Amino acid sequence: MLSGEKIRVGIFGGSGYGGSELLRILLFHPRVEVTLVTANEHAGKAVAEVHRNLHGLTELRFEKTPEDFEGLNDVDCVFLALPHGQALEIVPRLPSGVKVVDLSGDFRLRDAEQFKEHYGREHTATELQREFVYGLTEINREEIKRARLVSNPGCFATATLLGLAPLAAAGAIKGRVVVDAKTGSSGSGAKPAANTHHPQRANSFYAYKPFTHQHVPEIEQTLGDVSAAHDWANELVFMTHSLPVSRGIFASIYAEVDEGGRMSADDLSALYSDFYRGSFFVRLVKGSPDINWVKTTNFCDIGFAARGRQIAVFSAIDNLVKGAAGQAVQNMNLMFGLDEKTGLMLVGGNP
Amino acid sequence: MLSGEKIRVGIFGGSGYGGSELLRILLFHPRVEVTLVTANEHAGKAVAEVHRNLHGLTELRFEKTPEDFEGLNDVDCVFLALPHGQALEIVPRLPSGVKVVDLSGDFRLRDAEQFKEHYGREHTATELQREFVYGLTEINREEIKRARLVSNPGCFATATLLGLAPLAAAGAIKGRVVVDAKTGSSGSGAKPAANTHHPQRANSFYAYKPFTHQHVPEIEQTLGDVSAAHDWANELVFMTHSLPVSRGIFASIYAEVDEGGRMSADDLSALYSDFYRGSFFVRLVKGSPDINWVKTTNFCDIGFAARGRQIAVFSAIDNLVKGAAGQAVQNMNLMFGLDEKTGLMLVGGNP
Amino acid sequence: MLSGEKIRVGIFGGSGYGGSELLRILLFHPRVEVTLVTANEHAGKAVAEVHRNLHGLTELRFEKTPEDFEGLNDVDCVFLALPHGQALEIVPRLPSGVKVVDLSGDFRLRDAEQFKEHYGREHTATELQREFVYGLTEINREEIKRARLVSNPGCFATATLLGLAPLAAAGAIKGRVVVDAKTGSSGSGAKPAANTHHPQRANSFYAYKPFTHQHVPEIEQTLGDVSAAHDWANELVFMTHSLPVSRGIFASIYAEVDEGGRMSADDLSALYSDFYRGSFFVRLVKGSPDINWVKTTNFCDIGFAARGRQIAVFSAIDNLVKGAAGQAVQNMNLMFGLDEKTGLMLVGGNP
Amino acid sequence: MLSGEKIRVGIFGGSGYGGSELLRILLFHPRVEVTLVTANEHAGKAVAEVHRNLHGLTELRFEKTPEDFEGLNDVDCVFLALPHGQALEIVPRLPSGVKVVDLSGDFRLRDAEQFKEHYGREHTATELQREFVYGLTEINREEIKRARLVSNPGCFATATLLGLAPLAAAGAIKGRVVVDAKTGSSGSGAKPAANTHHPQRANSFYAYKPFTHQHVPEIEQTLGDVSAAHDWANELVFMTHSLPVSRGIFASIYAEVDEGGRMSADDLSALYSDFYRGSFFVRLVKGSPDINWVKTTNFCDIGFAARGRQIAVFSAIDNLVKGAAGQAVQNMNLMFGLDEKTGLMLVGGNP
Repeated sequence: MLSGEKIRVGIFGGSGYGGSELLRILLFHPRVEVTLVTANEHAGKAVAEVHRNLHGLTELRFEKTPEDFEGLNDVDCVFLALPHGQALEIVPRLPSGVKVVDLSGDFRLRDAEQFKEHYGREHTATELQREFVYGLTEINREEIKRARLVSNPGCFATATLLGLAPLAAAGAIKGRVVVDAKTGSSGSGAKPAANTHHPQRANSFYAYKPFTHQHVPEIEQTLGDVSAAHDWANELVFMTHSLPVSRGIFASIYAEVDEGGRMSADDLSALYSDFYRGSFFVRLVKGSPDINWVKTTNFCDIGFAARGRQIAVFSAIDNLVKGAAGQAVQNMNLMFGLDEKTGLMLVGGNP
Repeated sequence: MLSGEKIRVGIFGGSGYGGSELLRILLFHPRVEVTLVTANEHAGKAVAEVHRNLHGLTELRFEKTPEDFEGLNDVDCVFLALPHGQALEIVPRLPSGVKVVDLSGDFRLRDAEQFKEHYGREHTATELQREFVYGLTEINREEIKRARLVSNPGCFATATLLGLAPLAAAGAIKGRVVVDAKTGSSGSGAKPAANTHHPQRANSFYAYKPFTHQHVPEIEQTLGDVSAAHDWANELVFMTHSLPVSRGIFASIYAEVDEGGRMSADDLSALYSDFYRGSFFVRLVKGSPDINWVKTTNFCDIGFAARGRQIAVFSAIDNLVKGAAGQAVQNMNLMFGLDEKTGLMLVGGNP
Repeated sequence: MLSGEKIRVGIFGGSGYGGSELLRILLFHPRVEVTLVTANEHAGKAVAEVHRNLHGLTELRFEKTPEDFEGLNDVDCVFLALPHGQALEIVPRLPSGVKVVDLSGDFRLRDAEQFKEHYGREHTATELQREFVYGLTEINREEIKRARLVSNPGCFATATLLGLAPLAAAGAIKGRVVVDAKTGSSGSGAKPAANTHHPQRANSFYAYKPFTHQHVPEIEQTLGDVSAAHDWANELVFMTHSLPVSRGIFASIYAEVDEGGRMSADDLSALYSDFYRGSFFVRLVKGSPDINWVKTTNFCDIGFAARGRQIAVFSAIDNLVKGAAGQAVQNMNLMFGLDEKTGLMLVGGNP
Repeated sequence: MLSGEKIRVGIFGGSGYGGSELLRILLFHPRVEVTLVTANEHAGKAVAEVHRNLHGLTELRFEKTPEDFEGLNDVDCVFLALPHGQALEIVPRLPSGVKVVDLSGDFRLRDAEQFKEHYGREHTATELQREFVYGLTEINREEIKRARLVSNPGCFATATLLGLAPLAAAGAIKGRVVVDAKTGSSGSGAKPAANTHHPQRANSFYAYKPFTHQHVPEIEQTLGDVSAAHDWANELVFMTHSLPVSRGIFASIYAEVDEGGRMSADDLSALYSDFYRGSFFVRLVKGSPDINWVKTTNFCDIGFAARGRQIAVFSAIDNLVKGAAGQAVQNMNLMFGLDEKTGLMLVGGNP
């Protein structure tokens, strides 16, 4: 990009929380101009009427998904924040010069069988699939810089992988790894549903989709890339729970080091510090992180504990930012040669 | 009732929060046997599967609304916890020996025009309407004892009227009365909706239905009964707001005493203490009540403040108990000659 | 006990949440008369002024801890709800005819060294310790019936042990067991502190006391009693986290069955159903339990999941009821020959 | 200021929520360099260790309050975010070239008697008092531009005055005005206390300091400036309540228009639109505002309702931003000739 030139961005699916957070970030990104945002059910309405946090901050209006995509020739980058299955239809039709960041699960899995099993449909664009880079920025930064098509990771996958990758890469652990993950209610999307009905959710905590969350295969796939030695398909135990807060994912990761190979919390911190050198958005903390300190930001806070051969890694993100829209913009920055922090200095409040 | 004999109770509309709380109370009421509970969308399902708080506590199953009501001859009392408009259809068809407590707005208003204006339909049972007693227990206790048909007050109306009636009855105030009322999210019912979507509701506070809430006319009607001297239609300002809690209504009531007629908080407390002598479920507190101390209970806590000619009365209830199911059972107790506290010693927790 | 006779009860430490919940239950227990409740900092004050949920429900006043314990001869049962370390001083001085339920950690551990390590003080009553029965009702019911002295389990220990004991007893699991436990804020007590400061806690989730919570040794001790075959000191991984709700503990328990020994969720349910036959307060649920459905009650809800050799057990309680005051009363009931449910039909609300 | 030059800023009292939010804003303000931040109890500690939202974002450390203020000669602007009473001591000792924004109540009231009554101490700097401008930006913008000393309004005063000033200025209302105001828990500060103890606060709502909140006199004083015709001391009824959220103030304002002088919600909107022309941070909304849409931002959202002669104005702010730190920076911007929006494009999230 020429310095000062703007990236012309289109957002498909601007009415959900992913789209909403993309708008919160991109409308104030110094190098971006949002030229299109679609939401079929709100076509014609002002964006600021639907996302009332943006009242007074934008004149943009929602549009229908275009019938043909010729007009997208003057768009530089498209974000897809659509329900699973729609990106499969759209990406093949996009002009080949347009870069794409897809926030859905459509292009995360390389194995078409696994895709079918977890998403309940045939993968109809397996050739394109090969071109997609998995957009876990801190792990695949160099590939992302060169990519035209990036598949943004799931929120649970982001928290889990950032917490587990350094340990896996170091070959420091053996046997079963247990990941107990918890998410805030915005993870269920902007549409009202029984599990996000306030009177019930406000005082609740429960497990859901036990062992079968659709983020499991992308976690296993990425861990396999990082460390082929481990039998992740059998050794990863992953469980999702619902927290009574709006935002935040917290993953508690339990592993065991080899006999004789003890690691203290400080050892772990040193290992992760090396691994994440140069990664501004991963912050290592003393003791436990807290979702309160990452809310509304693109940070992933990671902390450690150890006793004997047992180790625990705690990872906290905002599910809508580092777990979705923030990481998507971080990836766009890299794809266009910008500093990955550009437009992402979202500072959280205290309290 | 013969001592020891059980009141056979039928509940129409057992799947909403009103029905749910009726079940929580009536299934453990020492003088009640629940013989029927309807919920068309759950017909055949175990009650405890729908209301999971009751798991292990009842074998009862939901039934469809009966096609004819002959079978209800062996029911002593029917509670109607249905959407507005349905009691209008059902009550006229009930056997004349059955006592009724209706929790909807169908029979609260004596004026058919007002009913039409606020509920958007013709009143089709105006003759029956005359037989209904407005079930604000502490105000209409003697009429309720003799009633066959009782119309249970709205939740906002209960909090407001219990807070305002003694002042109105004493003729102590003049001019405009402002009622700023706030409700928890369960007041919107058990069906998920945009305004009770957890991610949004959890950090929100806002006003809604400004000046036009459907409880306004029943408040004005009852205040008129208590004190015809006041021009309530012009002098009552009533506003509803949404609180980010599951349960609770808090009404802040602002009034002005006559020139020369100052009342301190202690004077107010003495006045209310007189008025509510013998009313176990109204508790007078020092300073402000708190919805936290009445949640899950049938209490209405009332507190006072005064400065110069300005006075404030604060009234707090659980919207589903004193504001709905609890008061309904309190009324049933009276209608069957029982102590009004029977089955209603629901003690709230701390915290 | 003669039928109809009342158990005269004294409560030491009535100002904290444990004491508060004991009062909520015991004041309405049909076979109990509370004759004494102490709280040195509130001596002379009305109980209902401190615990405002009890306003209008009791005339009882807090007293100072008696200087000598002669007067306790006409007390049948003493509950100790005091900070750790105080029961050590008091129990030896109590008249020998008085039965005791201690809610602190003072008499839970048989090993004086472990006590010193986790509670930071010498155990000064090791002889008495031998007489104490660990009051996990569903596991030690028969011993509790015969006991004069009962040590009530910790809240985390209760949730964890009820979730894990059947599996341990069946010898069905091998290797490491991971327990990821989460508690509501009332677990930190009634005194304001940084970790329960509302602005911070309301949107937070974090781990604390990693691997070192003081409930770990009582969990290991009890699991050892249930199944000596397992090396619990090395194979139990226990982690505590903070939830942004007032009440509730949720334990996610991860284990692995022997090769060849797969168990489905239904198998697990059948195993637990056998184990908890006759245990009214343990409820087995489909899928996951939810703290929302046990809040304010004495229930422990347990659910299951399985995939391959991996199994997960989920256990949910109210930390102040089944995790403290409720279980204490359940134990008292047994110690005095009553049905364990007496006074404990605390039905939770929906929502 | 020369374009590009930085304002050197010192913050006194950086450990509370006011100081914390000042840091969140000023550390990223393009025209500010924070050169000093004091917090006696944390002297020497890293700011990011105390305010964990700032982890990784600043190397700044807390210092003790300087013994003499000579060194402050190279500071351009001082923010005082100290408990009431301390600014009284500090401001007279500051070098005369330093500009000051005081966030406490020390210099808000022109009447020393009123100050003594509400703050419980003598005003010891009445001469300086005269030089202070009341920093309600949208009302006193021109005076603030010329001021050296600015006294930042209280949070309740900001929400109330922005909601009421246009109406008062228009002379459109008569008689009593009732303001029912509600605040989130961060309004009570960063120190744990009984009223912000999470287990209690999480499900509570109550009134406090009835009629006597210390923000009442500054509201009356400012309304008197705007409209001397109204007898505010007798006609303003102001009540504060506690909301179970971290952030946000919502003021419901009830007034009555002259007979014959009816105003619709649209009329009100037009009046306010005129009044706030050019005021970016006041946003007029349809219906009711919601604290959810202003949280973490410097916006004040205002909405309207009307029925007959009754009108209601609703005003929502973030108590720590527009109600404290944000408005303080907005004032600093004006005092140094900058666009008032500089560094204040804090965009709130959805949800």
